[in-house]
Amino acid sequence: MDLKTIDAPALAQIERDAADRYADLRRRNIQIDMTRGKPAPEQLDLSDPMLTAVGPGDCIGEDGTDYRNYGIWNGIPEARRFFAAYLEAASDEVVVGGNSAIAMMYDALARAVFFGLADGDGPWRDQAGVKMLCTVPGYDRHFRMCEQLGLEMIPVELTETGPDMDRVEALVADDAAVKGLICVPKYSNPSGITYADAAVDRLAAMRTAAPDFRIFWDNAYAYHHHGAGPAPLKNILEACKAAGTENRPLIFGSTSKITYAAGGVAAMAASRANIADAYDKIFGSTVGPEKINQLRHVRFFGDLDGMLAHMERHAVLIAPKFAAVDAALEHHLGGKGLATWSKPTGGYFVGVDVMPGCAAEVVRLAGEAGVKLTEAGALYPYGRDPRDSTLRIAPTMPPLEEIEHAMAVFCACVELACLQKLKSAA
Amino acid sequence: MDLKTIDAPALAQIERDAADRYADLRRRNIQIDMTRGKPAPEQLDLSDPMLTAVGPGDCIGEDGTDYRNYGIWNGIPEARRFFAAYLEAASDEVVVGGNSAIAMMYDALARAVFFGLADGDGPWRDQAGVKMLCTVPGYDRHFRMCEQLGLEMIPVELTETGPDMDRVEALVADDAAVKGLICVPKYSNPSGITYADAAVDRLAAMRTAAPDFRIFWDNAYAYHHHGAGPAPLKNILEACKAAGTENRPLIFGSTSKITYAAGGVAAMAASRANIADAYDKIFGSTVGPEKINQLRHVRFFGDLDGMLAHMERHAVLIAPKFAAVDAALEHHLGGKGLATWSKPTGGYFVGVDVMPGCAAEVVRLAGEAGVKLTEAGALYPYGRDPRDSTLRIAPTMPPLEEIEHAMAVFCACVELACLQKLKSAA
Repeated sequence: MDLKTIDAPALAQIERDAADRYADLRRRNIQIDMTRGKPAPEQLDLSDPMLTAVGPGDCIGEDGTDYRNYGIWNGIPEARRFFAAYLEAASDEVVVGGNSAIAMMYDALARAVFFGLADGDGPWRDQAGVKMLCTVPGYDRHFRMCEQLGLEMIPVELTETGPDMDRVEALVADDAAVKGLICVPKYSNPSGITYADAAVDRLAAMRTAAPDFRIFWDNAYAYHHHGAGPAPLKNILEACKAAGTENRPLIFGSTSKITYAAGGVAAMAASRANIADAYDKIFGSTVGPEKINQLRHVRFFGDLDGMLAHMERHAVLIAPKFAAVDAALEHHLGGKGLATWSKPTGGYFVGVDVMPGCAAEVVRLAGEAGVKLTEAGALYPYGRDPRDSTLRIAPTMPPLEEIEHAMAVFCACVELACLQKLKSAA
Repeated sequence: MDLKTIDAPALAQIERDAADRYADLRRRNIQIDMTRGKPAPEQLDLSDPMLTAVGPGDCIGEDGTDYRNYGIWNGIPEARRFFAAYLEAASDEVVVGGNSAIAMMYDALARAVFFGLADGDGPWRDQAGVKMLCTVPGYDRHFRMCEQLGLEMIPVELTETGPDMDRVEALVADDAAVKGLICVPKYSNPSGITYADAAVDRLAAMRTAAPDFRIFWDNAYAYHHHGAGPAPLKNILEACKAAGTENRPLIFGSTSKITYAAGGVAAMAASRANIADAYDKIFGSTVGPEKINQLRHVRFFGDLDGMLAHMERHAVLIAPKFAAVDAALEHHLGGKGLATWSKPTGGYFVGVDVMPGCAAEVVRLAGEAGVKLTEAGALYPYGRDPRDSTLRIAPTMPPLEEIEHAMAVFCACVELACLQKLKSAA
């Protein structure tokens, strides 16, 4: 029954019932944090053998280099080969860094802002009104780095097949101040969308007024499926090479949700010209990445197939949690016309769209009942969801039974917030 | 016999002998790299037990936090306590980061340049002709980061007791564009100077025209003595607190030459206001540091005393190398009036001053004879040693017998270059 269509007296009764149910759930005094996409302890346990993968007397690389000493700005050759397979590029198109892809992305963006790029007209910062396209709903850390670096953000709606490409093409064609796009192309955060081949091709081929246009391709969930194997995503570096725009993409990935979160290894893939440009600007600011943890990862996985097998084990652990979220949403909210939600086959989030004007109230109500959700608005630039509608559920960290409790609370909050809204509008 | 005072025929003969000796050494076809201050393999071996200091099921911190997961931007509490002792500050005045103090220093400098500091007048970059004082001779990576970030470098001579403080005080007093000083205060690179208490006190107390003046205190060799124990260095954070300038110092250190080079852990100490300011600007650009390696270090050392005992073992390994360098210099060049050199009691370098106008030629000659030295000029801003006189010897990496070969070559090159100079001037 679509609750948006019932009459006022029935609505009042249903709202009172929902308020009672919410009050009841509040009294249970639960404390569950669903704000961030964090792996659960049993996922982290999968990688514990990695801790002993490199032992005393065992730090010499394949070419005889002692990885305990200084040197190698772009990662050990073994790790570059591993990430070349991971990121689908050549070894010399890959820089393997420290523990954070976000940090590598921030540095790449900061280099463009403060120093400029080889194919551009100087630092972005010295040009008027430089803008970044941001797919929405999207990832709060992307928005925060753009804002901190003084880039105006233009939201672009994410469709079922990728960014609204008509709009992207229109925005980049004539305005040379539109310098880039930042996005999660596979199992997008939070909607779980994977870009269709046609979207990748259009991103590669589109004419941009800015000569130094860059796509920050945050492929954070490249192998993070829920059991059906990784979704196919067209290789954007190849697509750009074919289109003659090979300097356009900067591709990022890490093992943060594969081995240890913030204890993994991150890497960037890009054209050789972009790698050379990064080298010029990175040099002098570092003694190079921590190499032992790179070696530990390569020894642990062996190769990409080893990592793919490892990701199957993650899928076994997290799939039931996503199934529980979907089942709860269906059970409590199905057919009521108050919310729609994504059914992702990979990644770390479920996106929920509630009735416009209700998202912030859902977060407030849930928080008061002990379920911490990502701040409403966080999925949009400047923290402003224009419809106050989109929420994100991060179910990987809590145990299954907690997810069931948390979802009962979440759904009660959605129902109550929406019914209050309907009542006040009636 | 001071060769600068002998007559022309004798000089010609000695120069021919030196050329013969050099030609002889060239024919030995040695290949020794003395460019960088790298630990030797046997030094790195000292830390190999660290590799097994954290094993499976053992990554839970003292407060129950799982260090395999996301979180903690400023370092695990155990590591902050360890580095609080190391850097002589309170735990909440310390940020423990990744593997590179140089990267932390670069980031701190870049934040000042691009974002500005809480007590300043906006980004340094937006102010005209911003300058940094650099002690000379000094560290090439310091110079490179200042140059890359667009800061004009003003060299300040290092005396036996620290920077030429009369000059520093004169430079900072009236010119608000002089924003900072970057230096290695203990066992300075390459002269081995440790700043006297009076120099630290004057740095803390001096009046600066810039309200946001910062001292980048790169205490890279705080515990790196050659057997006599670490030299005392007055605590600059305490000195600044006493002088009412507690936001002035940013103090850096790492375990790169204690455990593994570029595989250690780095930290910054500063006033609480500086830490809060760093947090504002770091947040959004990282998922926090790699915590397992921090835990590994704390487990390995236990506490600062454990690290001090470890540094005694380093001293045993490197002291004979420094002694060999000094003995060779004394043996080959003693009393000849062609060069003076430092006799450091800690750190990683010996500084050698040859006759003005001869340093680049020494590097060239040594390179042709198979001994790679740090580029002449590298110890000065913009790679320009105004007297072409200062060289740096890094003896830690090669085995002792190679050092003896390398020093025979080095001394022959000094003698030949200087004699050629004397002959052409005669």
